[in-house]
Amino acid sequence: MAYTLQQLSDIEDIKLVKHRYFRGMDTAEWSLVEGLFTDDVTVDYRGGGYRVQSSGKSEIMTFLKNSFHSDAVAMHHGNMPEITLTGDDEAEGVWYLFDIFVDKARGSQTVGSAIYKDRYRREGGQWKIAHSEYDRIIELVGPLASDTQISVHWLATHGLKPEERQDIRHLITFEANHG
Amino acid sequence: MAYTLQQLSDIEDIKLVKHRYFRGMDTAEWSLVEGLFTDDVTVDYRGGGYRVQSSGKSEIMTFLKNSFHSDAVAMHHGNMPEITLTGDDEAEGVWYLFDIFVDKARGSQTVGSAIYKDRYRREGGQWKIAHSEYDRIIELVGPLASDTQISVHWLATHGLKPEERQDIRHLITFEANHG
Amino acid sequence: MAYTLQQLSDIEDIKLVKHRYFRGMDTAEWSLVEGLFTDDVTVDYRGGGYRVQSSGKSEIMTFLKNSFHSDAVAMHHGNMPEITLTGDDEAEGVWYLFDIFVDKARGSQTVGSAIYKDRYRREGGQWKIAHSEYDRIIELVGPLASDTQISVHWLATHGLKPEERQDIRHLITFEANHG
Repeated sequence: MAYTLQQLSDIEDIKLVKHRYFRGMDTAEWSLVEGLFTDDVTVDYRGGGYRVQSSGKSEIMTFLKNSFHSDAVAMHHGNMPEITLTGDDEAEGVWYLFDIFVDKARGSQTVGSAIYKDRYRREGGQWKIAHSEYDRIIELVGPLASDTQISVHWLATHGLKPEERQDIRHLITFEANHG
Repeated sequence: MAYTLQQLSDIEDIKLVKHRYFRGMDTAEWSLVEGLFTDDVTVDYRGGGYRVQSSGKSEIMTFLKNSFHSDAVAMHHGNMPEITLTGDDEAEGVWYLFDIFVDKARGSQTVGSAIYKDRYRREGGQWKIAHSEYDRIIELVGPLASDTQISVHWLATHGLKPEERQDIRHLITFEANHG
Repeated sequence: MAYTLQQLSDIEDIKLVKHRYFRGMDTAEWSLVEGLFTDDVTVDYRGGGYRVQSSGKSEIMTFLKNSFHSDAVAMHHGNMPEITLTGDDEAEGVWYLFDIFVDKARGSQTVGSAIYKDRYRREGGQWKIAHSEYDRIIELVGPLASDTQISVHWLATHGLKPEERQDIRHLITFEANHG
């Protein structure tokens, strides 16, 4: 069984949406990221000591902007997509994340992985993220080594400054580690 | 020269097989992984201090289950596929691995890369891994830093517990480092 | 809108070019890498404390061979491609890099990310890299931990030995960190 040309095109375009999401998040290109979500997007991110549940593009954009701010040294590589078309304008995707996160204010470093399970919907000819959830697979947390220098930090200049940030703690449940 | 629709479909499906392999291995979804191998699959993994040579799906599944067990904190990202169709039902693939492995029992951490060279065969309409080998390109080994906390560890609950494990040392040749 | 078969084929082939580039660079397969560039290729790499500007295949090959030499422990994973066809024989690509670099002579370790913006041109039926530039997004630099062992190091045997190397400092501008 072969895919149709339309199906292969859709798979490529859905991959582009998620690629842009990760790139836009780590570079604070928020206008790019905003265009990748449906208005009614929902997320459920189950991490080490946290769970993020949010719905609606506006709330999720607030969460992202205030997570990847000027004190966040962040890299998110979402790899190995498994895209399944479930309808003419609907699809599901599985992605495997590797991420590095340094919190400059706290001096902490997190290295981890996660499996994303997403749903996509085509609206006005554009594939968009309608739902995204992940479970952490590994997560290693420690202090950033005192002899490590942050020699490049894009978000320092592009991310929200302390005085520009909003409180997003109501979107996060801090849990005991469930590793 | 363009690929045919069938060829592009085959390339996408072969990528999915390997993506599922890495995801299944790191999450101990062994029924998923088992379906990705031909019965006569062979492997030859040439690492830093080890070489794994094994043949047959059953033996290789034993190796995997007993390597990625409840003390293994593992992430394998196989990226940058180069798939070449070599026949209607045969293909080759090159992949570039990045992996992190923490052995909780030993307190050691390995970070490394490897180049995979695989062969695939279509059986009953499904692409499967018929042969897989890799050479390590870089491998860095040291103790897990004492101030690093493992805050999520999926295999701790999903991987084989000590009393469930089998001895697989006969599948591994421990070598002097050949880096 | 669907892509044509030719467009999807071109996108796959362009991905292969960049995949081979990263693999060839980290394994010193210079004859492979050389075939991936147009003769008039230009690069502009904006890193933490450096900027590399170079033009012409010959000069860029000299730069690469003398950067990824026998003291370089290197891994470059270029992921999440966003390929845009801009003409029958022209295309652009965005890639998100994750890299690890240990300088054995200096005992330093760099972990970082970068966004590549490339241009590709088809010549004689082969897609090639005509221009490549990147900006670092994060870069963490420190000493390699004294208790970390380099247990595999492919370039030690495949990369240029000290007496084989050429001076490439004229291609690099060393800057104050602009992170």
